[in-house]
Amino acid sequence: MDSQTKPVLHGYFRSSCSWRVRIAFALKGIEYDQVPVNLIKDGGQQLTGQYKEINPMQQVPAVIIDGITLSQSLAIIQYIEETRPGRRLLPTDPKKRAQVRMISDVIASGIQPVQNLYVLQKIGAEKVPWAQHFIIRGFEALEPLLKQTAGKYCVGDEISMADICLVPQVYNAERFKVDVSQFPTIKRLNQTLMEIEAFKGSHPSCQPDTPFDLRS
Amino acid sequence: MDSQTKPVLHGYFRSSCSWRVRIAFALKGIEYDQVPVNLIKDGGQQLTGQYKEINPMQQVPAVIIDGITLSQSLAIIQYIEETRPGRRLLPTDPKKRAQVRMISDVIASGIQPVQNLYVLQKIGAEKVPWAQHFIIRGFEALEPLLKQTAGKYCVGDEISMADICLVPQVYNAERFKVDVSQFPTIKRLNQTLMEIEAFKGSHPSCQPDTPFDLRS
Repeated sequence: MDSQTKPVLHGYFRSSCSWRVRIAFALKGIEYDQVPVNLIKDGGQQLTGQYKEINPMQQVPAVIIDGITLSQSLAIIQYIEETRPGRRLLPTDPKKRAQVRMISDVIASGIQPVQNLYVLQKIGAEKVPWAQHFIIRGFEALEPLLKQTAGKYCVGDEISMADICLVPQVYNAERFKVDVSQFPTIKRLNQTLMEIEAFKGSHPSCQPDTPFDLRS
Repeated sequence: MDSQTKPVLHGYFRSSCSWRVRIAFALKGIEYDQVPVNLIKDGGQQLTGQYKEINPMQQVPAVIIDGITLSQSLAIIQYIEETRPGRRLLPTDPKKRAQVRMISDVIASGIQPVQNLYVLQKIGAEKVPWAQHFIIRGFEALEPLLKQTAGKYCVGDEISMADICLVPQVYNAERFKVDVSQFPTIKRLNQTLMEIEAFKGSHPSCQPDTPFDLRS
């Protein structure tokens, strides 16, 4: 049975989309192997012909699971959800499921892609103000949405895919020196979530490929 | 029952993400009302305080349905899928569902956001080569992925959310003068899909807010 083989995550410690998948695996209690793809070293290992075979978009993450190769973190997370037992990553109520997907996509389509490495490389010298602009613009929308949907977590009182997207995006915001305290709901949710082992243990500061000077 | 009220789509004739939702409604046979949000006129009607209440991201589409307001086209499409009968928009097989979501997200997170209006407005004079660069980069990845997954349509022989994303992205590519014939699988799928009434009738050239000189 191919489902008895451990999934293999091709990722990078600091990639927020890789971190999403690590959180999902941890919440579900799924063991997996990691293959680091260093996005900086050698001009970017995601650009090799070998990696392009795995993910033609030349991005991380990509997961080999059950005999197929999947890229795009939300597709991976929802595949895990639909094929693995354990803690639910999306609620059962259709309206709440839709809100989880909406918040996930505000981050995964509305914010992260515009401050992604390959976009910033194209922007060049102005990359920090560019990233700050789009993260702040996104958080200004996310804050009122989350005010409506949040309970203890992003949507109600159950951890979901929306939380899996939020925490790595806050990490990106902090990397780009965005003052997250302007967004009290986002800040509060992030703090609550960062107490949870699945979020802590999957953090960029403690992955197999985290450089020693960035470890904590 | 709020589900007996027609959904209301706030959209723009030429927005590829609005078109995705129009295709989904058409495939499901769902009647809906359209409220045009002109992204150009008056400096952009999506920027008004009134529209910001509907979608804080100040983007289209947003749909009012069953008493809730949803933005993000893939969240809307999957909500329709999970609450409405009729033609399936995602396959039942989990691996194929994952491939549909992967291809949808390559477009919805990997291509469209980077050539979105609000990004191009920030780019300024260089916007056409910028959009071409990221569309071509995305199609270079999409082509080999679709070669693996496609049958008659993007994933196998059933129309899915992946097709709903593909056709409007090809329309965007053509607007930016990208030569789609470089990508034979994409071109073939688009031609096949454009024969189908749900794709034709929802086309930007024939919406209530399409200007007369752009009608066909």
